Amino acid sequence: MAYGLLKGKRGIISGALDEKSIAWKVALKAKEEGAIFTLTNAPIAMRMGAIKQLAEQCEAEIIPADATSVEDLENLYNKSTDILGGKVDFVLHSIGMSPNIRKGRQYTDLNYEWFKQSLDVSAMSLHKMLQTAYKLDAINEWGSVVALSYMAAQRTFSFYSDMGDAKALLESIARSFGYQYGKFRKVRVNTVSQSPTVTTAGSGIGGFDKFFDFAEATAPLGNANAEQCADYVITLFSDLTRMVTMQNLFHDGGFSMTGASEEVVQSLLASRQA
Amino acid sequence: MAYGLLKGKRGIISGALDEKSIAWKVALKAKEEGAIFTLTNAPIAMRMGAIKQLAEQCEAEIIPADATSVEDLENLYNKSTDILGGKVDFVLHSIGMSPNIRKGRQYTDLNYEWFKQSLDVSAMSLHKMLQTAYKLDAINEWGSVVALSYMAAQRTFSFYSDMGDAKALLESIARSFGYQYGKFRKVRVNTVSQSPTVTTAGSGIGGFDKFFDFAEATAPLGNANAEQCADYVITLFSDLTRMVTMQNLFHDGGFSMTGASEEVVQSLLASRQA
Amino acid sequence: MAYGLLKGKRGIISGALDEKSIAWKVALKAKEEGAIFTLTNAPIAMRMGAIKQLAEQCEAEIIPADATSVEDLENLYNKSTDILGGKVDFVLHSIGMSPNIRKGRQYTDLNYEWFKQSLDVSAMSLHKMLQTAYKLDAINEWGSVVALSYMAAQRTFSFYSDMGDAKALLESIARSFGYQYGKFRKVRVNTVSQSPTVTTAGSGIGGFDKFFDFAEATAPLGNANAEQCADYVITLFSDLTRMVTMQNLFHDGGFSMTGASEEVVQSLLASRQA
Amino acid sequence: MAYGLLKGKRGIISGALDEKSIAWKVALKAKEEGAIFTLTNAPIAMRMGAIKQLAEQCEAEIIPADATSVEDLENLYNKSTDILGGKVDFVLHSIGMSPNIRKGRQYTDLNYEWFKQSLDVSAMSLHKMLQTAYKLDAINEWGSVVALSYMAAQRTFSFYSDMGDAKALLESIARSFGYQYGKFRKVRVNTVSQSPTVTTAGSGIGGFDKFFDFAEATAPLGNANAEQCADYVITLFSDLTRMVTMQNLFHDGGFSMTGASEEVVQSLLASRQA
Repeated sequence: MAYGLLKGKRGIISGALDEKSIAWKVALKAKEEGAIFTLTNAPIAMRMGAIKQLAEQCEAEIIPADATSVEDLENLYNKSTDILGGKVDFVLHSIGMSPNIRKGRQYTDLNYEWFKQSLDVSAMSLHKMLQTAYKLDAINEWGSVVALSYMAAQRTFSFYSDMGDAKALLESIARSFGYQYGKFRKVRVNTVSQSPTVTTAGSGIGGFDKFFDFAEATAPLGNANAEQCADYVITLFSDLTRMVTMQNLFHDGGFSMTGASEEVVQSLLASRQA
Repeated sequence: MAYGLLKGKRGIISGALDEKSIAWKVALKAKEEGAIFTLTNAPIAMRMGAIKQLAEQCEAEIIPADATSVEDLENLYNKSTDILGGKVDFVLHSIGMSPNIRKGRQYTDLNYEWFKQSLDVSAMSLHKMLQTAYKLDAINEWGSVVALSYMAAQRTFSFYSDMGDAKALLESIARSFGYQYGKFRKVRVNTVSQSPTVTTAGSGIGGFDKFFDFAEATAPLGNANAEQCADYVITLFSDLTRMVTMQNLFHDGGFSMTGASEEVVQSLLASRQA
Repeated sequence: MAYGLLKGKRGIISGALDEKSIAWKVALKAKEEGAIFTLTNAPIAMRMGAIKQLAEQCEAEIIPADATSVEDLENLYNKSTDILGGKVDFVLHSIGMSPNIRKGRQYTDLNYEWFKQSLDVSAMSLHKMLQTAYKLDAINEWGSVVALSYMAAQRTFSFYSDMGDAKALLESIARSFGYQYGKFRKVRVNTVSQSPTVTTAGSGIGGFDKFFDFAEATAPLGNANAEQCADYVITLFSDLTRMVTMQNLFHDGGFSMTGASEEVVQSLLASRQA
Repeated sequence: MAYGLLKGKRGIISGALDEKSIAWKVALKAKEEGAIFTLTNAPIAMRMGAIKQLAEQCEAEIIPADATSVEDLENLYNKSTDILGGKVDFVLHSIGMSPNIRKGRQYTDLNYEWFKQSLDVSAMSLHKMLQTAYKLDAINEWGSVVALSYMAAQRTFSFYSDMGDAKALLESIARSFGYQYGKFRKVRVNTVSQSPTVTTAGSGIGGFDKFFDFAEATAPLGNANAEQCADYVITLFSDLTRMVTMQNLFHDGGFSMTGASEEVVQSLLASRQA
């Protein structure tokens, strides 16, 4: 069901890898809701993805960009405003990667070059996207920037390793830049802290499945899926949420505010009695 | 601009006192977005208000109810489902009152009967609204309950006296009942922590104006007004936010995440040099 | 091992029911650390307890007081300052009771008179203890008030029912009054959010044991016990923490900041495979 | 006044630049409380400081170490355990530096190489200190690691630029590593979020003075000073706080929980009327 919430709006959506991606769903919804936008992803990630199919479905152009490269981001904004016919109204940041996780390094045995890469790709990239836009004045007044985060920014989930720290940094950058961008250009910046989600990226994390089940068994509404996340992000891009900024917004079926569910507690008991 | 976000939805909106009220704006927006609903207020509050005019505008019936009375609330739900032709999909709780504030009692000199009244009217009333609905099974699956709150629940604003404590209790009830209602009926419950707002209720608080200005000077986007709050509440009633529950959501132009603005810091300096 | 941290200090310790009580351990430690103090408890609670034995051990007098009665609290402060030879330096609030829990009422089926009692006994009593002290000017500059809380104030634990809400109110009162008492008398007020603890009060809560085990399996250091809590409270009464105020301090072996432990996640998996 | 709280304990204290430093005060207090320890600082920072004088006063040896160098940190732990005659019981991390702030770059105009340096020096250095200790097994069971932080990790203070993000990362690392170190070695890790403090480092930040005054006018107890911070840190190194871990602890006279003080609000009003 479509409402026309983004009618007349222009945007940039990063991070659509394949049809499981949250960004992919956001693109489809944004299209349905009347937006035009460009798609972007790292050159290396795009080769693996099916992003061209998405681009066709959305009548969107793809602009490859390494989000750690200011030059690439300048090109992204410049081309996007050219293609879309004006400044953008929304930006989705859905970018994250940890070499330490990929290569199975424990949190007590991090490789520091990789840690820096985790931070650069997963968090500093948001600063770069914002600062580049700010300098180019590429986002309209009352524009909205959303970055996807995860609750490991607040509490430790050992399987998530240095990505928890990267997400904490990401959320801080959203707050810090959100202040500046709000004050001087009336642009809002928020993070959405999403349930563990079955995506190609998420599933690559060792132990992901177990934690997915734990979150599902804890949250009173269960885990939010990618499509529901896209719905939520659309509301944050719309004009109905103009005064929400610098927030980290949990989209997690209530997980974040649940101390423990009966099911989880019972299963602990059962496994001990077994 | 209307989107049809609440098309086919039924609701109950409490707390519309006059046209400055947030609840008043929510009613107008809900109507625009396609909802049908009933209006309610305390019998005593209604005499002062212009609620009949609102009811006409919204083609809504008024059902007086003292939100501290379970009997009144049962009547509210029963009549509402009768009038609207089915269970409700959304409920707005916009109820608060502190005799201690009204009568100018300092926080270090509270009258405890009045403190109890503050808690009963401003916070326990949410539990009663929820428990009554739960027992009557009066809210549809994926229904949404929103209660209006204020940041004094997290940090102390001395002018707000015992209402800060009442809001902390309100937010806790939203979390606690949100867990149960989510788990067993898939109904979500959230609070919106709104900027200080120029309403008849808000303005009755001594020192309100100064704090309004302080918040305005601190928040990068300035204070959110009643109409913007209504917009936001509509998104929370819509189907696009189904997995958001048990949250306290700041709708405050970024105030909550701002340590201090340059303007406020400068004015302190200036006033000392004066 | 004793350090003399409270040498020369006078205090009031409430809530020592029997030797499992946190308050009991606080009394023993406070004595060891050089303090003199009075003990207090509700007349009804004291009949059940072994408080006289504690009083002898600590060379402390017992002053019965119903913490919901301002009159009793006035008497408590007046007698305490008489007995101890001056204003007090520290106060422990360790008071909580929920008739709804005792009588097994679900959170979706609360008795509202009992809910009010929960709030009055468990939370408003802190306001009464503070306001009474404030009016009588019964606490010395740089005095310290600590109230015991539980993490259900932040996140829902269904077994804890309306006590979660009472603790949220308690923590809010600590902040609100802490502001006033700090500003005008340099007295600090904090809450300690303690692990689930095997006390006579705690064990009375249905489902307590299972949640104790869950917390133990989640917190990296395991649950903090009553004696460790007493140690921590002593530091908060000491002169070394004078600038800590209005805080809720987790004393929980890291539980509050842990998303999920491997053990809990594994047991969920195991119980599903069984 | 000394209590012997750290009698028999060994430690490492970083970051003592001159006698205004918090680390300097911690060293003096730790000595008074009976500890033995080594002092460390970056070779470049030490040339500027008066650390030798402190070393003499504390009968402590100085081990230069660049906290971004794992090799230097290995040397630090190895030499410290040699000199002190065993594993250490406490570590103070008091390290932070932002080239962007030093060189006056706005937050919307960051130099990214400098941003990386801010993060590396101010936050990743904590991970390196912890991981190095963990691998060398250089900290005793029930040891305590404290890192100094600032509230800009939670809320934006524009003068603090990218250091706010660095502190958010620092606090996340403390939580993440605190989980691991607690679980597997019973070592606790916490951050202390200190009031703005008149130190040589703090005063170097443009606009610091104004924000110091703002915090002083907001916090009910005023700003905590360096000596009071040292007192607090001592309690966290002591055996009385063994179950406190993964926490960020505000030591700020109540600033963090104050929405706005009367004085600040009045001065805003006054400056507008002027």
